[in-house]
Amino acid sequence: MKLSARNILPGRIVAVTKGTTTAHVKIELAPGLVVFSAITNEAVDDLALKVGDAVSAVIKSSDVMIGK
Amino acid sequence: MKLSARNILPGRIVAVTKGTTTAHVKIELAPGLVVFSAITNEAVDDLALKVGDAVSAVIKSSDVMIGK
Amino acid sequence: MKLSARNILPGRIVAVTKGTTTAHVKIELAPGLVVFSAITNEAVDDLALKVGDAVSAVIKSSDVMIGK
Amino acid sequence: MKLSARNILPGRIVAVTKGTTTAHVKIELAPGLVVFSAITNEAVDDLALKVGDAVSAVIKSSDVMIGK
Amino acid sequence: MKLSARNILPGRIVAVTKGTTTAHVKIELAPGLVVFSAITNEAVDDLALKVGDAVSAVIKSSDVMIGK
Amino acid sequence: MKLSARNILPGRIVAVTKGTTTAHVKIELAPGLVVFSAITNEAVDDLALKVGDAVSAVIKSSDVMIGK
Repeated sequence: MKLSARNILPGRIVAVTKGTTTAHVKIELAPGLVVFSAITNEAVDDLALKVGDAVSAVIKSSDVMIGK
Repeated sequence: MKLSARNILPGRIVAVTKGTTTAHVKIELAPGLVVFSAITNEAVDDLALKVGDAVSAVIKSSDVMIGK
Repeated sequence: MKLSARNILPGRIVAVTKGTTTAHVKIELAPGLVVFSAITNEAVDDLALKVGDAVSAVIKSSDVMIGK
Repeated sequence: MKLSARNILPGRIVAVTKGTTTAHVKIELAPGLVVFSAITNEAVDDLALKVGDAVSAVIKSSDVMIGK
Repeated sequence: MKLSARNILPGRIVAVTKGTTTAHVKIELAPGLVVFSAITNEAVDDLALKVGDAVSAVIKSSDVMIGK
Repeated sequence: MKLSARNILPGRIVAVTKGTTTAHVKIELAPGLVVFSAITNEAVDDLALKVGDAVSAVIKSSDVMIGK
């Protein structure tokens, strides 16, 4: 499946923390460049996400702000 | 101002395209790693965004999905 | 690629309207059940979206509110 | 109150799971077509959401991606 | 219809600007406190939004960041 | 850092509730006008957010719906 989301950034999972319903996953895109994702625990289980996995951070362009 | 957003990714603007109300801005985080942002034209004017500017892509972690 | 997004709703495109930078796409999930999507023109071109295409509406669960 | 959100999809609640702060609610729009929502526990309490309730899933069109 | 969104902020429209597909609407919540909204042109037409209208800005709590 | 987000609403924190991974923070913008924010626990710790702090609610205009 190809996505309309303009940002599909490949990386590797460096941390997975599950909460009661919401999980936090950290993805390293490049050395020192880490993206933080908050998803459902169900998604973590369904995709069997774990440290070391090759994944992509997927972000809709309307969710990207700019700071200058 | 320090932000609660967990993703503040530094880069450089490589493209700015203004529409009638919505603008598209591309930010290069690293060679070949470009993030696409859709913001208001007013924001582009207010921040005087132009190609070459050092900026950050700011993304709330609840807006980051994962693909595997 | 499998996604963390919990909502991947299959349907068929019934309308595509491109603006200057933002496009609107309507997807029929079931007879009379239409989902409205606002994406970039670039995504419409990249995926070659047109009326009749079989596609999925992809929605992160944190973007779904409830009205009662 | 009428909403600007273009997606107001009627259905019935089939599951409510409360976490520590975030709750997950599943809404069946049609047989086999279930939408997953992550909202605050406070919203679940305030709307007294429970299995069997007739509700609508409310989604802003800028939060709908397309996969093809 | 009662909403799960925790932020329903009453105000008055002070500006409406339609683009090709996306419109911008400004809502004054209190003297000098203006909220900016980007919605579809279709929503502006459907709700017949115009300057002076009493409306509410509706925002999901997961879309509110904090700066300090 | 100046932000593209069009809504940067100054106020004062009136409540902080941490969950397992997600925290809820309430910000009073004006007497009786409270904004509810759901952010990560890490952000609460990183910004040392506590009741009484002068902060801003930061909201992207594409995340603001309108009810009439």
